[in-house]
Amino acid sequence: MSDAKTDLIRIAYLGPPGTFTEQAAVLFASEHARSEFVPFPSITASAEAAARGEVDVAVVPFENSLAGAVGETHDLLIHQLDLNICDELIIPIEHCLIVAPNADMSEIRAIYSHPQALGQCQRYLNRRFPDARTEATLSTAQAVGRAVELGDFTAAIAPRRAAQLHNARILEIGIEDDHRNATRFVVLAHRDRAPTGDDKSTILFSTANRPGALLRVLQHFADADINLTRIESRPARERLGTYLFLIDCDGHRNDPALADALQRMEPDLEQLRIIGSYPKAPRP
Amino acid sequence: MSDAKTDLIRIAYLGPPGTFTEQAAVLFASEHARSEFVPFPSITASAEAAARGEVDVAVVPFENSLAGAVGETHDLLIHQLDLNICDELIIPIEHCLIVAPNADMSEIRAIYSHPQALGQCQRYLNRRFPDARTEATLSTAQAVGRAVELGDFTAAIAPRRAAQLHNARILEIGIEDDHRNATRFVVLAHRDRAPTGDDKSTILFSTANRPGALLRVLQHFADADINLTRIESRPARERLGTYLFLIDCDGHRNDPALADALQRMEPDLEQLRIIGSYPKAPRP
Repeated sequence: MSDAKTDLIRIAYLGPPGTFTEQAAVLFASEHARSEFVPFPSITASAEAAARGEVDVAVVPFENSLAGAVGETHDLLIHQLDLNICDELIIPIEHCLIVAPNADMSEIRAIYSHPQALGQCQRYLNRRFPDARTEATLSTAQAVGRAVELGDFTAAIAPRRAAQLHNARILEIGIEDDHRNATRFVVLAHRDRAPTGDDKSTILFSTANRPGALLRVLQHFADADINLTRIESRPARERLGTYLFLIDCDGHRNDPALADALQRMEPDLEQLRIIGSYPKAPRP
Repeated sequence: MSDAKTDLIRIAYLGPPGTFTEQAAVLFASEHARSEFVPFPSITASAEAAARGEVDVAVVPFENSLAGAVGETHDLLIHQLDLNICDELIIPIEHCLIVAPNADMSEIRAIYSHPQALGQCQRYLNRRFPDARTEATLSTAQAVGRAVELGDFTAAIAPRRAAQLHNARILEIGIEDDHRNATRFVVLAHRDRAPTGDDKSTILFSTANRPGALLRVLQHFADADINLTRIESRPARERLGTYLFLIDCDGHRNDPALADALQRMEPDLEQLRIIGSYPKAPRP
């Protein structure tokens, strides 16, 4: 990724335009003078474009305050691509019920959306449309396309921007079950960032196969007074019951406290990779 | 759930017939003389039926050796339903490429499956069908229905049993990228199980908001020599950055070692719920 604020930055994201990921990409681009947005059909395809250098960065969803970790992104970082996290963005998630402009809405029979969005509006759907069928699509934007195409008796759940892009009609705003719903996006690139003084780090490790190894690793963070903001276990893909750990902690990998702690925990680790150190996003 | 081996047991599962969940339900039923299978359109609907007592148990996917935790099941147990885990089952996951019996397969343009199955066959798909479109369905069984309905140039990814149930044709067996792929299913009911001597427990907790609380909780398990087989963090649904922990450990909650350890860690906990103690499944 380019640090010069005047350079053109090419940003891959999960398209089509109108997704929450595009919204995060637009927020990221606001720090750069010139940007170009390149939509991809999947999280994986957008990250692979960054890995191959076809774009400068990929903006991808990382975790949601209700649904938890985005598995596809975690597995790409852990198992497939040698990319760093160079930034994070936090986007509040607001869902709308969206229909074709002149469609007959006397009854809603089918509701299209991405499975995660359907999950985030489940109580609303059960209450308002107990008899409607829900249909999974690959993105919320695709769901709006489907609803506009099918017309009568069909609705989509998607962000406001998707309705605007498809000239569709918003029937209701803010239908998510929990209004504290926010998604943390990360920006993937070939390198991370220089220290800013208010940074965090994402670290991947597996523990040596000895009893209490995870405990000792966490003890090293505590001894160094390093605040852990997240610990996530992911399958090691060896057999059921073996895991890797992904930790977010305060500080930059160049900070002496973190660098020393990482060195001290080495005997308890089988694998260690610093996925990135990057500035903390402001909370929304 | 009924312990008497001659009683009829009613088992809810994620249908339609032909899903991996049905396969797990059939395995669970083999311990009972008489069983009845009740398909539901979602994991949530099947678990809610068990919570309401319309069925005796619900068999639901819990974690996969490649994709990790099944979010919907975890969130049901954590946030919505007061059900126990009374058993676990481990099913090896084998995917097939399935098509309509007499369809033209000179070219495959669209491939339907559940997003998790598409993910588990991603490298195969990229290699064999780089130009095919992938379409998400709500179950692997539904994907086969779609492929049979659409016919020419269309395939589905699903287990072998789904092909049999739809009289569809299996083009290829074992197309999953990783043959160590297995899913752990759990059986949900209104109570868990008496000790068998080889049990495990699933425990949900949140730590008091004090530095190092998680570390002290893990220390209590280590001090009691209790082996943790899994630690999973899930969003607490308060705000981004607050988590609950779900731990699997060896032993039954009635075992003195585990009962004592749980009592000793109480000052460091804000919330504690034993989701269940149940016999360990044999590894496949």
